[in-house]
Amino acid sequence: MRLRNLVGIPEVTAGADLAGLIARLSAQQGVAPGDVLAIAHKIVSKDEGRVVRLEDLEPRPEAYALAAETGKRPATCELILRESARIVRRRGGTLICETHHGFVCANAAIDLSNTAEGTAVLLPVDPDASARRIQAAVAAAVGGRVGVIITDTHGRAFRRGIVNIAIGVAGMEPIVDHRGGTDREGRVLIATEQAIADELAAASGLLMPKNGGTPVVVISGVATVPDPGGAHRLVREAHLDLFRG
Amino acid sequence: MRLRNLVGIPEVTAGADLAGLIARLSAQQGVAPGDVLAIAHKIVSKDEGRVVRLEDLEPRPEAYALAAETGKRPATCELILRESARIVRRRGGTLICETHHGFVCANAAIDLSNTAEGTAVLLPVDPDASARRIQAAVAAAVGGRVGVIITDTHGRAFRRGIVNIAIGVAGMEPIVDHRGGTDREGRVLIATEQAIADELAAASGLLMPKNGGTPVVVISGVATVPDPGGAHRLVREAHLDLFRG
Repeated sequence: MRLRNLVGIPEVTAGADLAGLIARLSAQQGVAPGDVLAIAHKIVSKDEGRVVRLEDLEPRPEAYALAAETGKRPATCELILRESARIVRRRGGTLICETHHGFVCANAAIDLSNTAEGTAVLLPVDPDASARRIQAAVAAAVGGRVGVIITDTHGRAFRRGIVNIAIGVAGMEPIVDHRGGTDREGRVLIATEQAIADELAAASGLLMPKNGGTPVVVISGVATVPDPGGAHRLVREAHLDLFRG
Repeated sequence: MRLRNLVGIPEVTAGADLAGLIARLSAQQGVAPGDVLAIAHKIVSKDEGRVVRLEDLEPRPEAYALAAETGKRPATCELILRESARIVRRRGGTLICETHHGFVCANAAIDLSNTAEGTAVLLPVDPDASARRIQAAVAAAVGGRVGVIITDTHGRAFRRGIVNIAIGVAGMEPIVDHRGGTDREGRVLIATEQAIADELAAASGLLMPKNGGTPVVVISGVATVPDPGGAHRLVREAHLDLFRG
């Protein structure tokens, strides 16, 4: 298994035809059918125009209240409220939110770094659709199916530090179901759904330094299975989740 | 960045000198200073004798009560109680426990697969110490510092599927602290502690099929920093955790 950066991605702005650019660079740089591309969501969000100027926002009263509680700016809180289906936990300046996609993360994943001063980058509206669009372009350019994973860095319950995870997936199964397989003693394995899209995303995080210079990673040598599922399959349904409530 | 399996690890039993074996295979198979070895905890646990026969256990009354509630065997519940500092959540047959190490995971990480019938494999008593012991042996054999990560597969709050994580770390910093670094606009980055030991563990999970045949993965081409910290640094302290209570 090998990971490398796709080189030559410039600073992305809205409507830059990111899918076409990634497809062209993929063909030029030897991406092959079966490879997986992990792509930091920030360039996808910028390409899709998911950037807002904080001064353009009119904070609602709840945003002012949240700002007073958390010490964040009212405009930032307005944005967090817009991007959240609900706030799952709050303590001091920390807000853990459930986004409209179902992701549970700090500040509804709005991001104030590596974007122009006074602006914030939001998650794509439908990261699985973003992944499918890029997947189609790259697959056409390299002559066969590839996997595409849109990533974001999230904190975790119980553990310190952020890791890169999958928020959009196309062209591959995000979860491999080992149930019904057998261990080396021949016993049936239970409860082993492996979140390979998250493991691939985490691996790619090691080649995405936090200053944002290398947002696309090419992963070769991992077997994936075609699947239209998408990263929403990685979201544990609320009624099965023991920690969301 | 490249990942490959260290080949030639046989079925491990107690007292097999696993550290010596991994060191010897590492030297033979071109492991170099700076590389990171990710090792499935199960072979470490077996080497350290952390395997129990369920029929040898005498379940306490609480274990019988838990068995009635969960549908698990009383002996399994006895073991879960022994390995747990406390039970964090329970619902139906699902028990999320905090181990004595501070890890929050299903069934206190006891494992009934890939072990002899009627036995269970427990986590090492001190996985950081296990990692240090193996690290010292491999470093001596290859002539320079390597990183060693002991891994286990855990579920996560909010997300479906298991991923490989770090439960023991030696020879490298488990978390890279980007705080104080700057983004591409020159602004100071905040709150970006990257859990690289977990990202490396997740990557290695892609080369550890669940039938248990290839428990050691060699990772090359990732910069690590020497550090005596250990994986306990990856455990979020209870008073800072919003989901443990």
